[in-house]
Amino acid sequence: MKPEEHAGPLFTDLYELTMAAAYFTRGLDEEATFSLYIRPHQRRTYFVAAGLEQALQYLAGWRFSGSDLDYLRRLNLFTPDFLAYLENLKFRGKVRAMAEGTIFFADEPVLELTAPIIQAQLLETCLINTVGMATMIATKAARCVHAARGKTVVDFSLRRTQGASAGMTVARSSYLAGFAATSNVLAGKLLGIPVSGTMAHSYVLAFENEIDAFRAYARTFPQNTVLLIDTYDTISGARNAITVAREMQAAGRRLAGVRLDSGDMAGLSRQVRRMLDGAGMQDVKIFASSGFDEFKIEDLLNREAAIDAFGVGTKMGVSADAPYLDIVYKLVRYADRNVRKLSPAKATLAGAKQVFRRQDESGRLTEDIIALDSEPVPSGARALLEPVMAGGRITVCLSGLETIRRNFRAEFDRLDQRYKKLEGAARFPVSISPALARLQEQTGRQ
Amino acid sequence: MKPEEHAGPLFTDLYELTMAAAYFTRGLDEEATFSLYIRPHQRRTYFVAAGLEQALQYLAGWRFSGSDLDYLRRLNLFTPDFLAYLENLKFRGKVRAMAEGTIFFADEPVLELTAPIIQAQLLETCLINTVGMATMIATKAARCVHAARGKTVVDFSLRRTQGASAGMTVARSSYLAGFAATSNVLAGKLLGIPVSGTMAHSYVLAFENEIDAFRAYARTFPQNTVLLIDTYDTISGARNAITVAREMQAAGRRLAGVRLDSGDMAGLSRQVRRMLDGAGMQDVKIFASSGFDEFKIEDLLNREAAIDAFGVGTKMGVSADAPYLDIVYKLVRYADRNVRKLSPAKATLAGAKQVFRRQDESGRLTEDIIALDSEPVPSGARALLEPVMAGGRITVCLSGLETIRRNFRAEFDRLDQRYKKLEGAARFPVSISPALARLQEQTGRQ
Repeated sequence: MKPEEHAGPLFTDLYELTMAAAYFTRGLDEEATFSLYIRPHQRRTYFVAAGLEQALQYLAGWRFSGSDLDYLRRLNLFTPDFLAYLENLKFRGKVRAMAEGTIFFADEPVLELTAPIIQAQLLETCLINTVGMATMIATKAARCVHAARGKTVVDFSLRRTQGASAGMTVARSSYLAGFAATSNVLAGKLLGIPVSGTMAHSYVLAFENEIDAFRAYARTFPQNTVLLIDTYDTISGARNAITVAREMQAAGRRLAGVRLDSGDMAGLSRQVRRMLDGAGMQDVKIFASSGFDEFKIEDLLNREAAIDAFGVGTKMGVSADAPYLDIVYKLVRYADRNVRKLSPAKATLAGAKQVFRRQDESGRLTEDIIALDSEPVPSGARALLEPVMAGGRITVCLSGLETIRRNFRAEFDRLDQRYKKLEGAARFPVSISPALARLQEQTGRQ
Repeated sequence: MKPEEHAGPLFTDLYELTMAAAYFTRGLDEEATFSLYIRPHQRRTYFVAAGLEQALQYLAGWRFSGSDLDYLRRLNLFTPDFLAYLENLKFRGKVRAMAEGTIFFADEPVLELTAPIIQAQLLETCLINTVGMATMIATKAARCVHAARGKTVVDFSLRRTQGASAGMTVARSSYLAGFAATSNVLAGKLLGIPVSGTMAHSYVLAFENEIDAFRAYARTFPQNTVLLIDTYDTISGARNAITVAREMQAAGRRLAGVRLDSGDMAGLSRQVRRMLDGAGMQDVKIFASSGFDEFKIEDLLNREAAIDAFGVGTKMGVSADAPYLDIVYKLVRYADRNVRKLSPAKATLAGAKQVFRRQDESGRLTEDIIALDSEPVPSGARALLEPVMAGGRITVCLSGLETIRRNFRAEFDRLDQRYKKLEGAARFPVSISPALARLQEQTGRQ
């Protein structure tokens, strides 16, 4: 399989196509509204919206190719009429969505799509996948940034992300949420994200001894030398690094930093800090990597580790403590009829919706209200879902990644600490408007 | 970003390039051997090799494009000499690897690559990512197949895989490990995997009432009707399904199955089974989905659920209980010198290696021995690492997915139950040959 064939309308579950065919046979294709939202999650009290740009690009380019239709024909499941219908299908619906970088909460729609039901149904799998994955990682990354208390955090996850497209999404979502850079060079090229990286243990091992490896690196990258000092022993590695730093000073250069990658990071970092300070090298930074996530960062900073920057890898890149979100795409309205599912523990909220957000005078976020899309914006509140697509075309100028990143940072600062605690955080107040609640009662009675 | 740009040599960590540049400056480019293996994992006692075909295709097509080099130039990190060197770089090394579908264990190399160190280093990120992800999912899927005790298992994970390429890998790896089909239509098209799927709750909700939805579906897919019966209430859904099944019988058709997606699956499945049997519909199958993984499958079968087939989604698709493996790519030999890293808890085994496998007369796997590549195959054992690439070209005819699947099944049956238990499984005996052990002592003393 070639990677370029990953996208397109066949990136879908078969049942989307069988349902579409049943709608088609029955002549059912009236306008439907689907709501994309995340069900409450034990380990997440807030989410960071991401993936909208990718989702909209997918919708805008969504067409069945000749080879797609050939394959579907060979399945012997679909009628020629239905296949001819698919051949001419384009997305012609409208989308309202939260801007990327918006903080949101469980049960709030992050996106609503309205289109003839056949189209709307066929788009389910890809929308859930695209927005869900990007949002899951942006959320995990925001937690790491929060735990790091202003210290630099860098994405080192590429080797263990769940595949190639995940690697790109992780670089983008983590940068959006405040990471300073990524090790992913392709993300640097394609997304303009700053790239970062120095050396691995294999590099040090390829030389006869550690100091030769350090010297070769300092000669190649005199402006940006960070030396990995734990291949043999962290303390003797620090001594070698100081020797090389002195040689660099003699040539008018300076060592940028050293990196720790194993052992007791709190103790070792303080010990290395004292060695560097003792050599007059207060400006040489200490980087650390190895199994970091928000919990390990918080723990090390609580234990007064002398670490200036964290390389955060695998556990962020797969959102290891919550590797999936219960994100769903539910029919809430069909042909002017509001609908809801009543299955135990999986009930949905009928009706096209909006989310209103209130803040106090100082700008702190105070409350969200899930309401009907038709309700007026309450005074002092703002509506989070904005129209972004109509008639199948993108109708807004989407913000660039730097703007999204700034907007997220500003809003994150306005979310009270108690909602951001890594464990045992308070639930942000989210209520349902009286009109939306009434609609549920009416729909339940139908 | 376009998906077709995901692959290629920039799918790498920046430090691979900075290390390569330092080797280049220093004139270091002798032959290196790197070993790809998985460190011991608390929740996995065996692994299922997968991803080799994708990895070899990547190696065979690995070239820096003009736009890749332009981007690297703009970083202002690399010299013109080094960039000119990259421009002409192709992979010219050799690879030995376990066939896909091979069962293997912690610390055993699943792949070894030998090439000039600059090439070998630059390939690290993509090899770890490709083989690691595919192997992680094949392993998780094998656990689900084992738990299902011969009942059908189908991949329903696409909507929550970690991105698009993950969705393709999951479909392939789960099929390789014995899943019967996937919901991923693109995997059907590109990989030839059987596809499966019927309807969602939104489909039922789009109709005025449940029975109309069932009738419309039965009319569209008379050969393959599976009805989702829990949108409103599972028992009344089963009654409606029986009504529609009778209507189908009158027209000379039969209902293939019903699907449960919520509630107490053990109790409900038995209740629905009795209803179907009471209506003379012993041949109508009961499908179940909703949060399945190997543990839930085992639990339900232990509780005598009357389920014929399991739709397994998210938890398999992200390997939820182990969403990453500690898979590493370590330098073990450079320029005729065997090397090892000594960092605490991360020590490596020096030397190019082979894995020998023994079995008893009945074919049951009894023991693995990690040995030097240069050792002769012990009598009665077989070598698991085979040459697959030389001079940068694929030298074997890689098995197709169906063959890999059959080979895996045969070997999995020969692995004793005690090594396959979902929890508390015994560790398969893996030892290190005396020659390999001696080499470690010699290398440690250097």
